[in-house]
Amino acid sequence: MDIAAILDDIGETMARATDRGRVATYIPQLARIDANRFGMAVALPDGQIFTTGDAKIPFSIQSISKVFTLALALGRMGDQFWTRVGREPSGQAFNSILQLEHEGGIPRNPFINAGAIATTDAALAGHAPREFLGELLRFIRTAAGDDSIHINEKVARSEEETGDLNRALAYFMAAHGNMLNPVDLTMGAYFHQCAVEMSCIQLARAALFLTGADGTPRLVSPGRRRINAMMMLCGHYDASGDFAYRVGLPGKSGVGGGIMVVAPGRAGVCVWSPCLNAQGNSKLGTEAVEMFGRATGWSVFD
Amino acid sequence: MDIAAILDDIGETMARATDRGRVATYIPQLARIDANRFGMAVALPDGQIFTTGDAKIPFSIQSISKVFTLALALGRMGDQFWTRVGREPSGQAFNSILQLEHEGGIPRNPFINAGAIATTDAALAGHAPREFLGELLRFIRTAAGDDSIHINEKVARSEEETGDLNRALAYFMAAHGNMLNPVDLTMGAYFHQCAVEMSCIQLARAALFLTGADGTPRLVSPGRRRINAMMMLCGHYDASGDFAYRVGLPGKSGVGGGIMVVAPGRAGVCVWSPCLNAQGNSKLGTEAVEMFGRATGWSVFD
Amino acid sequence: MDIAAILDDIGETMARATDRGRVATYIPQLARIDANRFGMAVALPDGQIFTTGDAKIPFSIQSISKVFTLALALGRMGDQFWTRVGREPSGQAFNSILQLEHEGGIPRNPFINAGAIATTDAALAGHAPREFLGELLRFIRTAAGDDSIHINEKVARSEEETGDLNRALAYFMAAHGNMLNPVDLTMGAYFHQCAVEMSCIQLARAALFLTGADGTPRLVSPGRRRINAMMMLCGHYDASGDFAYRVGLPGKSGVGGGIMVVAPGRAGVCVWSPCLNAQGNSKLGTEAVEMFGRATGWSVFD
Amino acid sequence: MDIAAILDDIGETMARATDRGRVATYIPQLARIDANRFGMAVALPDGQIFTTGDAKIPFSIQSISKVFTLALALGRMGDQFWTRVGREPSGQAFNSILQLEHEGGIPRNPFINAGAIATTDAALAGHAPREFLGELLRFIRTAAGDDSIHINEKVARSEEETGDLNRALAYFMAAHGNMLNPVDLTMGAYFHQCAVEMSCIQLARAALFLTGADGTPRLVSPGRRRINAMMMLCGHYDASGDFAYRVGLPGKSGVGGGIMVVAPGRAGVCVWSPCLNAQGNSKLGTEAVEMFGRATGWSVFD
Repeated sequence: MDIAAILDDIGETMARATDRGRVATYIPQLARIDANRFGMAVALPDGQIFTTGDAKIPFSIQSISKVFTLALALGRMGDQFWTRVGREPSGQAFNSILQLEHEGGIPRNPFINAGAIATTDAALAGHAPREFLGELLRFIRTAAGDDSIHINEKVARSEEETGDLNRALAYFMAAHGNMLNPVDLTMGAYFHQCAVEMSCIQLARAALFLTGADGTPRLVSPGRRRINAMMMLCGHYDASGDFAYRVGLPGKSGVGGGIMVVAPGRAGVCVWSPCLNAQGNSKLGTEAVEMFGRATGWSVFD
Repeated sequence: MDIAAILDDIGETMARATDRGRVATYIPQLARIDANRFGMAVALPDGQIFTTGDAKIPFSIQSISKVFTLALALGRMGDQFWTRVGREPSGQAFNSILQLEHEGGIPRNPFINAGAIATTDAALAGHAPREFLGELLRFIRTAAGDDSIHINEKVARSEEETGDLNRALAYFMAAHGNMLNPVDLTMGAYFHQCAVEMSCIQLARAALFLTGADGTPRLVSPGRRRINAMMMLCGHYDASGDFAYRVGLPGKSGVGGGIMVVAPGRAGVCVWSPCLNAQGNSKLGTEAVEMFGRATGWSVFD
Repeated sequence: MDIAAILDDIGETMARATDRGRVATYIPQLARIDANRFGMAVALPDGQIFTTGDAKIPFSIQSISKVFTLALALGRMGDQFWTRVGREPSGQAFNSILQLEHEGGIPRNPFINAGAIATTDAALAGHAPREFLGELLRFIRTAAGDDSIHINEKVARSEEETGDLNRALAYFMAAHGNMLNPVDLTMGAYFHQCAVEMSCIQLARAALFLTGADGTPRLVSPGRRRINAMMMLCGHYDASGDFAYRVGLPGKSGVGGGIMVVAPGRAGVCVWSPCLNAQGNSKLGTEAVEMFGRATGWSVFD
Repeated sequence: MDIAAILDDIGETMARATDRGRVATYIPQLARIDANRFGMAVALPDGQIFTTGDAKIPFSIQSISKVFTLALALGRMGDQFWTRVGREPSGQAFNSILQLEHEGGIPRNPFINAGAIATTDAALAGHAPREFLGELLRFIRTAAGDDSIHINEKVARSEEETGDLNRALAYFMAAHGNMLNPVDLTMGAYFHQCAVEMSCIQLARAALFLTGADGTPRLVSPGRRRINAMMMLCGHYDASGDFAYRVGLPGKSGVGGGIMVVAPGRAGVCVWSPCLNAQGNSKLGTEAVEMFGRATGWSVFD
C-alpha cells in the first residue's frame, strides 16, 4: 500500500476544497487561526511517518486530550472508573446538561464535556492540578516520543474565562456527589488539559499505543480496547454515527480542528484543518480520513 | 484457531450459569419459552458451521429482523433513505418517543423502534404488506440459504395486540409527514417481520453477507459497511456502548433472546438464550459472545 | 359599572388594530374565516347580555369544548377522575408527548391535548360516541339556554383527517393503560367535540354556571371551583401565566379564536377574533379581555 | 366572619394530626426543628391579628423570600425584568436545569430556583451583596412593620455549603449571558436571603401589601397584581395546580415549612408547620389553609 501517494492525493484534494466550514470563535486564540491550514500524518508501528501539508505545525488539541486523560484515569481506577462515568453514546449535544439530570449526575461517557470533567476529576485523585498536568504531559510525551509538547497558557486562560457552562456541569455533578475534588481545582486542570498543543505528526505517533501493534508502547494494556470502543461510539459527539459510517475507524475530534484516528493493529493517524462542520468536527479533516479509509480499506466494518 | 473447542467451552460455561436473566413476558409466545435453552452457531465463508447447544431450534428473531429490513430499504432507496432516518445512537430507551418530538419526527437510527417502523415503511414503498413480507422472506432465505424460514402467525397477532406504543410512534411520525403508507399497513408489516422464526444456524449463515468475505452473497454491496456501523453503534439499544466495549463486533439483539453478530471478513455468528438482562438483551448471549470475542481475538478494536 | 360603554370602547379599539395575528390554517374550515371578525359578549347572572361586534356569529369553539367535557367527566367520576389526569401546568406545548413519557402516560392536566383526550375517554365511559356527543350537546345547550347549538360535521371530518398527532397521544396513553375505550371511538368523539359551533353570546351564557352566582345553573356543584382553577393555571397552554398576569381571570381559549372567561360571582364573558398570537391564542381576544379586566377591576388578583 | 373561631378550629385539628410529613434535612438547622410545631396568623388591613399555635416563633422563611426579592427587582427594572425571567409554570421540579437548556438560559418564572437566582441577580444591580441584603431587610421590615427581623448567619452558611446545585444553575445562566453580577456575589446574596427568619405574625403582616386593601402599604403598586398571579401559578412549584385547586388563593411556600398566602382585598395569612409533603410544601400548612379557604369562602375561584 502506497500511503505516501494516498496522502498526496488527499492533500491535493483538500487544497482545492472551497467549502471549508468555519473556525471556532469562542476564544480568540482559536478564532485567529489561518483557515486554510491543512495537515495530515500517518505513523506506522515500525516508526515510519507519512505526511502531507501542515503536519508539523502545533495546534490546540482541545477535546483530543480527553483520550489521554481517560487513559490516566483508567490506569488509576481500573474498572472502578465506570461507576462514575457511563460508556454509552449520549444522543445529546456535547455540552448538554439534560442527561445529567435524568441520570443522577452520572455522565453518559468520558467524551462529552461532563464526562471528561468527571474523568479529569478521577485522574486528579487528590493531587494538585500542577502534578496532574505534569503527569498528563509525561504520558503524552511518552506516547508521542517527543519531549517538546507543552500547554499554551494563553489558551488555558481563555478557556477559563469562557468556561461557565463547563463549571455548571461540574457543580451539577458535585451536587450529586460525583466530584471528588473541589470544583475549582478540577476545572483548573480541565481547562489546562484542553490547551495542550501538538502537531499532526505528534498526535499520529501518540495514537500508536492504541493500535496494539507490536513495537508500540504498552501504556494502558487492559484499557486499550475500551478506549477504542469509546472513540468509535462517542468520539465525535452527536456525529459519531456519521463518522463510524463514513470512516469506520475509532477517532476523537477537537474543536481546534484536529482528529486523532486509530487503525487497530496498523497505524496512528492525525488530520488537522481548523474549520468545523455543523456538528463541531473538522469539516475537511472528516473528509480527509473518509478518503483515507476508502483508499486503504482499513475500515473495521469491511 | 479451534472454533469447535471454543464453542464447546462456551456451551459448558453457559450450562453452569445460575443467574440467567428473565424471559420477556409482554406476549405469551415469548413468556412460554424454556428459560434453559442455549444455542450458538458460527458460519464461516467457506461453508463450515460450528455449533453448541440448541443451535437448530427456531426462535422468534424479533428486532434482529430490523437488519434485513434495513438492507431491503437501502436497496430500494439508496442514500435517500437517510433523509427519513438518522444514523446516530439515541441515548434513550428503544421505544422512547422523546427524541422524535425534539427532532421533527425523524428517528435517530434504524434500530430503535421508531426508526425500524420508518424503515419498514420505506421498504414497503407502496406495495401491499403481503408482497413486502414475501420479499423479506426471500431475502432472508437467500442470505441463509434455507427455504424453510417462515413467519409465526400467532406471534404476529400477539404483537398486534400489544402494539399500541409502536402505533403511537407511527402516528407521531405520520403527523410529521414521515410515513408514506397508511399507518395500519406499515404496522401490519412491522408486526409480522418481528415474528420471523430462525435458528442459530440459520442466522449465523444469514449474517455472512455482512462479512464481505469472499464467497459470501453480495446482497447489499454498497450498504454493507453502513449496516455494520449501525449495528456497532446502535445494535443493542442503550447498551450498545457496553456491547462494543465487551465484544467489539457489530451485533443486533432481539427480545426473543437472539443476537446476530458479524465478524467482518471472517464469520457470521449467532447466539440464543431467551433470558434477558436489564437492558433487554440476552444475558447469557452477551456473555457468550464476549467469551467468543476474547478467545478468537476478533474484536475490531484489537 | 357601565359594561355597555366598556364593550363599545373595546370594540372601537379592536376595529383599529393593525397587527391582528394569523388565522389557524391546519384545516381549511378555519383557514377560510374572515380575519377581520371581532365579537365580544358579557352575560350577567340576572340575564342581561352586553355585546359588541360579531357577537352573534357562530365559530368553531375547538378547545373551549374541553371545559364542558371536563364538567361531564367530573360529574361521572368525581375525584376518581384525577387518578387518570393530573392538575398541574405542563410547561410544554399543548400537543407535546414528552411529559406523557416521563410520567407514565398520565397527562398533566385536562386542557393539554393528551389530557383532553383522556377526559373525553373518561366521559365516554363505555357509551357510544353518538350518545356522548348527544349528552355533551345537551349539557352545553342547557348551560347556554339555547337549543340551536350543534356540531359542524365538515370541521369534525377535517379534524379527523389531520388528527395523527392526537392519535399518537391516544395510543401512547393506551399503551400505558390509560384509555378505557378503543382509541378509534374516543378519537371520533374527541374530533367531534372540537367541532361544536357557538357564538360569543352563547358562550358567555354557557360560562355562567362556572361563576357560582345566584340564579345561574348548578351543573357541577362540587367541581366548579376546580374547573376555574384549572382554567386559570392551564387554560391558555404555555401562555397561561401571561394570561393570568394580564387578565387575572380563569379563561379557556380555542384555536378557532374564541376565549371563554369566567368572572367568579359576576359574569360569563366570551371574546372572538380568529387570528392567533405566537402561543396559539386569539391575539385581539387576549387584548380585549385584558382591557376588560382593567376597566372592570375584576381581576381576582386585585 | 369569626376568624378567631376558624383559627381555633384549625389549630385543634392540626394538633390531632398523626401523619405530619417529614422535616427537610438537607441542612442541619432545618433538620433540628421540632416536628410538632404548628402556627398560623391572619392579618387584616385594619391592623387586627388573629393567631393560633406557634405564631410568634421565628422560622427560616427560605423560598418565601423570593416574593420580596421579586418585588425589589420589579421596582428596580419594571417590565424590563421579564426579559430575563419568564412568567409561566415550569412543569418541572423546582431545581430542574432541563428547562434552562431548552430555553436558552431564561428561567421559566421567578419562583423556581433558577428564576429566583436571576431575580436576586437583577435586584443586586451592581451593588454589593451587603447593600442588597440591607435593602431587602428594610423592605421586609417595612412590609411587616417590625424592625427585629434578621438573617440567621448559621443557616446562610449551611446553604452555601450545600449550594452546588444552585451554583450549577447560576453558572448555566451566566454561560447564556443571563447573569449581570459575578456568580459568587449573586449566590452569596441568594443564600443569605433564604436565611431570613420570621414568625407567622410577621409574615401575615408582610403579606398585606399584596392584598391591595385600603390602609396597606403601597410598596409595588403596578407589580402587585403580577406578583399575586405568579404566586397562584408557580408559588408551590410542581404542586401549584393542587394548591390552586384546594385553596384558591395566591401563596408561596418555603422548605422551612412556612406558607405565606394573600387573600386579595382581605387579608395576609401565614401558616407554619415544618414537616413537608412529597412535593416539598408544608403538609399540615397546606391542609390548614385549605380548611381556612373553605371556612372563609375566600377562594378567588368561588
